[in-house]
Amino acid sequence: MTTLATHPRLVSLEGGEGAGKSTVLEALRIALGADGDEVVCTREPGGTPLAEMIRALLLDPAHEPASPETELLLMFAARAQHVRETILPALERGAWVLCDRFTDSSFAYQGGGRGLDAGFIDELERRVVGLRPGLTLLLDLPVAQGRARALGRDGRPDRIEAEQDAFFERVRATFRARAAAEPGRFRIIDASQTADRVAAEAVAQMQAWRNPA
Amino acid sequence: MTTLATHPRLVSLEGGEGAGKSTVLEALRIALGADGDEVVCTREPGGTPLAEMIRALLLDPAHEPASPETELLLMFAARAQHVRETILPALERGAWVLCDRFTDSSFAYQGGGRGLDAGFIDELERRVVGLRPGLTLLLDLPVAQGRARALGRDGRPDRIEAEQDAFFERVRATFRARAAAEPGRFRIIDASQTADRVAAEAVAQMQAWRNPA
Repeated sequence: MTTLATHPRLVSLEGGEGAGKSTVLEALRIALGADGDEVVCTREPGGTPLAEMIRALLLDPAHEPASPETELLLMFAARAQHVRETILPALERGAWVLCDRFTDSSFAYQGGGRGLDAGFIDELERRVVGLRPGLTLLLDLPVAQGRARALGRDGRPDRIEAEQDAFFERVRATFRARAAAEPGRFRIIDASQTADRVAAEAVAQMQAWRNPA
Repeated sequence: MTTLATHPRLVSLEGGEGAGKSTVLEALRIALGADGDEVVCTREPGGTPLAEMIRALLLDPAHEPASPETELLLMFAARAQHVRETILPALERGAWVLCDRFTDSSFAYQGGGRGLDAGFIDELERRVVGLRPGLTLLLDLPVAQGRARALGRDGRPDRIEAEQDAFFERVRATFRARAAAEPGRFRIIDASQTADRVAAEAVAQMQAWRNPA
């Protein structure tokens, strides 16, 4: 597996903190299943028992911090497992796969955020992932607004949430640059609206993509 | 970090099951420390708290099997962390680092054993490891003999020990090919001898390497 195939039934949702991904995922899941199609809702890092254990290692503040390279390889280890155990089997039986974060997040967080070489991430994508979503919905909003929303939630921040604003500005810029470079795959949703408006716009964009005029 | 540097105070020990690595490591540790030098004894996968947690994931038969690609990336995630948190700091303060397995094991087990592309493993080595041992001692013995010794121990086999003979034949052949390609770095020790003889020969080979005639 050293090339990239685009799979039309794989839909990913990307975006920073506080962008309202949970509400949007539920609305997309309902819309994709409305005609009786199977919809597999999954997430990254995670999506298999082993990949969820890798997720726990990545986000747990209990051990020493992972180096940027360690973090990148753990993300791709989880993704390699997720693609083979969950995503490809679902696509092969004809299901829709709706994924909360996918490879674009590695380019944004470990590439843009942590400064790792995008050429290396490209190679990992080709070597161990091998497929791209047909549609990627990017929930975009200013960093300060997203962080203010995220702070309103319970609990301690995980390792990645604890990063500084400049980190999240680089993450946002990388997501936007990737969307600009691949307008056929990406749709950008203004996530500064209310959660219900964001969800409605995401569903409308997805339906327009499925049924082009 | 995209090139490979050889570090003269990093010594790795490689070999298959039942080769007697524990006895040899202890003998090497004592010999390296005899003049009062600091000796850091470490192992892979592992060598930091996070890397040991990755090791536990790799060897635990409780979750679904890791795909070969997942296994490879977990090995290199652990190694990236180990190099940065344990090995480089020790080398920088002038210590000897004695490592039970290092990158050669990924070429042997995930490359030779699992059939993953050696060019990709080369790239991971250059991108996230960046250094090679000055000396690698390879404990070599026939697969059947190593397995007979390993079976004599307590406990259930871990995921890698549970592989078939053909897998271990490929592992052995890869180690031997790497040793033949880098005679300046490798010394091959006949591990079919008694543990004490193997340890004595390993120490003698290391001393000859440190103090060439």
